[in-house]
Amino acid sequence: PLCLCWALGPAAASAPPNILLLLMDDMGWGDLGAFGEPSKETPNLDQMASEGMLFLDFYTANPLCSPSRAALLTGRLPVRNGFYTTNAHARNAYTPQDIVGGIPDSELLLPELLKKAGYINKIIGKWHLGHRPQFHPLEHGFDEWFGSPNCHFGPFDNRALPNIPVYRDWEMIGRYYEDFKIDLKTGEANLTQIYLQEALDFISKQQASQQPFFLYWAIDATHAPVYASKHFLGTSQRGLYGDAVREIDDSIGKILKHLQKLGISENTFVFFTSDNGAALISAPKKGGSNGRFLCGKQTTFEGGMREPAIAWWPGHIPAGGVSHQLGNVMDLFTTSLSLAGLQPPSDRQIDGIDLLPAILQGKLIDRPIFYYRGNEMMAVRVGLYKAHYWTWSNSWEEYSKGIDFCPGQNVSGVTTHTQEEHTTLPLLFHLGRDPGEKYPLRFASDEYQRAMERISVVVQQHKATMVPGEPQLNVCDKAVMNWSPPGCEKLGKCLKPPKSDPKKCFWPH
Amino acid sequence: PLCLCWALGPAAASAPPNILLLLMDDMGWGDLGAFGEPSKETPNLDQMASEGMLFLDFYTANPLCSPSRAALLTGRLPVRNGFYTTNAHARNAYTPQDIVGGIPDSELLLPELLKKAGYINKIIGKWHLGHRPQFHPLEHGFDEWFGSPNCHFGPFDNRALPNIPVYRDWEMIGRYYEDFKIDLKTGEANLTQIYLQEALDFISKQQASQQPFFLYWAIDATHAPVYASKHFLGTSQRGLYGDAVREIDDSIGKILKHLQKLGISENTFVFFTSDNGAALISAPKKGGSNGRFLCGKQTTFEGGMREPAIAWWPGHIPAGGVSHQLGNVMDLFTTSLSLAGLQPPSDRQIDGIDLLPAILQGKLIDRPIFYYRGNEMMAVRVGLYKAHYWTWSNSWEEYSKGIDFCPGQNVSGVTTHTQEEHTTLPLLFHLGRDPGEKYPLRFASDEYQRAMERISVVVQQHKATMVPGEPQLNVCDKAVMNWSPPGCEKLGKCLKPPKSDPKKCFWPH
Repeated sequence: PLCLCWALGPAAASAPPNILLLLMDDMGWGDLGAFGEPSKETPNLDQMASEGMLFLDFYTANPLCSPSRAALLTGRLPVRNGFYTTNAHARNAYTPQDIVGGIPDSELLLPELLKKAGYINKIIGKWHLGHRPQFHPLEHGFDEWFGSPNCHFGPFDNRALPNIPVYRDWEMIGRYYEDFKIDLKTGEANLTQIYLQEALDFISKQQASQQPFFLYWAIDATHAPVYASKHFLGTSQRGLYGDAVREIDDSIGKILKHLQKLGISENTFVFFTSDNGAALISAPKKGGSNGRFLCGKQTTFEGGMREPAIAWWPGHIPAGGVSHQLGNVMDLFTTSLSLAGLQPPSDRQIDGIDLLPAILQGKLIDRPIFYYRGNEMMAVRVGLYKAHYWTWSNSWEEYSKGIDFCPGQNVSGVTTHTQEEHTTLPLLFHLGRDPGEKYPLRFASDEYQRAMERISVVVQQHKATMVPGEPQLNVCDKAVMNWSPPGCEKLGKCLKPPKSDPKKCFWPH
Repeated sequence: PLCLCWALGPAAASAPPNILLLLMDDMGWGDLGAFGEPSKETPNLDQMASEGMLFLDFYTANPLCSPSRAALLTGRLPVRNGFYTTNAHARNAYTPQDIVGGIPDSELLLPELLKKAGYINKIIGKWHLGHRPQFHPLEHGFDEWFGSPNCHFGPFDNRALPNIPVYRDWEMIGRYYEDFKIDLKTGEANLTQIYLQEALDFISKQQASQQPFFLYWAIDATHAPVYASKHFLGTSQRGLYGDAVREIDDSIGKILKHLQKLGISENTFVFFTSDNGAALISAPKKGGSNGRFLCGKQTTFEGGMREPAIAWWPGHIPAGGVSHQLGNVMDLFTTSLSLAGLQPPSDRQIDGIDLLPAILQGKLIDRPIFYYRGNEMMAVRVGLYKAHYWTWSNSWEEYSKGIDFCPGQNVSGVTTHTQEEHTTLPLLFHLGRDPGEKYPLRFASDEYQRAMERISVVVQQHKATMVPGEPQLNVCDKAVMNWSPPGCEKLGKCLKPPKSDPKKCFWPH
């Protein structure tokens, strides 16, 4: 009955539900038991799926972290919100320490909008939308932050590269490897436990204050360098990566139980997904699995873009549901707004759609999925067909150094090491029969002709109305690194930046 | 309570449970929703898994149909029961129409043994242990048969090759393509419906007569040429292969519901598995999926040998169980005997173990898995380690003709097209971290040394005590084909055999 109420439209009268996005880092479609991981070590996530709805055709907006996260929070493709580069064709760019750009002020982020509906917004974990002051998450709608602006690479020497700061709200409270330890030898770090406690505390606080919350739990234990806390080290069949997954699984179980214990599970919409496919370059010890899909992170094959996804909202989402709705992380923007009774901005193109009809009523909305790599639309999915307009894994130069985005996989003419254009005659796959993108349809077949007719219209329309945003990821400068984040004085951890020397960033793939 | 009673040992007092083996043909590990198939079109099998126990590390005894089935029914490796060839090294052999051999009389088959405990035994579907009179299933312990001795290839011209007969009990009642239609153009055939009805009728009859039964439901819709009945054609995302899977899934749902309706589900042990990995040479339209595993049918990589497996026995097997017990089809022999309160034969080597402690008490029994291809032990699994003593996919000659057992996959030095011996320094994989067999361990690593010490002992012991049986699959002769099966006179379907001309069979891979 309540679900009908929401399904029919935003109910202004009753309080909107809390929104909890559990965003994984480099976790692949094939990493969960519910998605066929053969060690089946994710009982809590599998239970979450059995109590909620499994999305089998859910995507990211980009096979790399920063653009994917920018897309999630803006509801817009990276090529619109600026999270791309024009330095070279079809190159994935992100926000390393020396990036000058970040999320533009002109972009409207989900927490900014949710504020209007009375939400208190917190980000726990990795921000990754720029680390300079104007890009700070609390400048873009979040009320609280615990986590870091960049990846937990390191340790750095604080001379050539400063160690990455960890923030609480406005200020740095320490740095990775100094104050927040990660033992690269053993893989031990208790960061997931800290992120878990932050989540539990925030949820408790919000429940007590009776204000709806948006919690963006963007943890990073499955991103290299992979880590787990002592209790979980060595407990997985899968090695350290599996230990990290087991700790995350355990933590999510605790978060869901916490919601239930507080009596707010029926008023909290939870969505679990990942920012991009598993990083096969780090596999098997420190990278995950994309199951049967082709290649991984950095590529626009299914392995790079298709994500595990679970929606959970007891009393609203029917238990054990399975959806083939084509969805993506940008839909979480629009869906969250819908949950809050808000409309998406009408002054700009929003790429996300409201998934509530799919989630609550089992509807299937016909919509395409676009696969971008940097500034290029590489592929598009329409229904069960996927057409590749460009193919590329990585360069011969990289590949010959052992950097392989498709280890053990080689589909002739598909996993190419040169950028191959197919715009006049796209490579077409039927993802139902061939989820692994191994058998391109014959160009001369009726099926190819019929499918491409439909797809061409979609692509033409997309390209005709595409207005790229100002690219944010073109310029790098060592002077902008995390030398002296706010709060560094109190800690005696301010470092002296070098002279400014802005350069074109180099993006190898 | 009843499960404890059985777990503690055969209870002579109470009637033994019915045994129902659902054996699929060329279905792969990755073909079921519960094992991560992305179209998730097997709701009945997924429910069977959630009500029973999922086996994630379950194997066949050979990556090809006949030897696998001979192993299941004898509890012995094909190299012991004669289902192999010595015509060439490491070649998979089976029972085509012109095979002279078949299951030796000296072998004790499961139904022969179950008779002693009062079981009525029926085989529905493909026998595949030889089609000459002395190999007839009713000569080897079965009381009833509905099905065919060989694969449903065809149509044949009844001159060079006769169409394959379909038997009811002792006699042929028709032939494929003549009396039992398979439309190769549309893929339509109602055979699964016939096999389903046969199963339902047999179960009803046995329930009425209060005699325990063993039903071996060895259907073949997922073996090329793949087929489905009209109602299911075109209903799957996966094409014709998926239609066949959907029909099988629906049929198994009906069989389980039938058991429940008759009130005998708690007295019927049901086990679902497949005879070998998916036939990737027929994929994607007419072959299944081995998920993330390497290669397929015909190979001793995981894709050829690891099988989907589900045990179901309401009231005995705890719902939602997941087992990592290393199991194989030969265990179904020993487990079935155990269920019937019988001991396995003590006058010969039995390779199967009793899985009941794993199924009923969640125990993990340490035991190796041997991967044979024809007459060669290609690999062995001990714990999470798998050591390849020989690697081979298929010959360059075959491969260059487009016959590919590992489409889209290429692991350098592993998926070799020449038979590569590694007996002095086996290729070692950790299947927990690397289920796809993509990253051989470094020979110089401590881990390699430690694991191989353990494995070497296992292999030495295995080889030292190995006494191969008389090879049954060496000789072929067109005269022995299904020209005039018993019953052909009544149907006017006797064909004249050519003169006997026995030859060495040629096994290309």
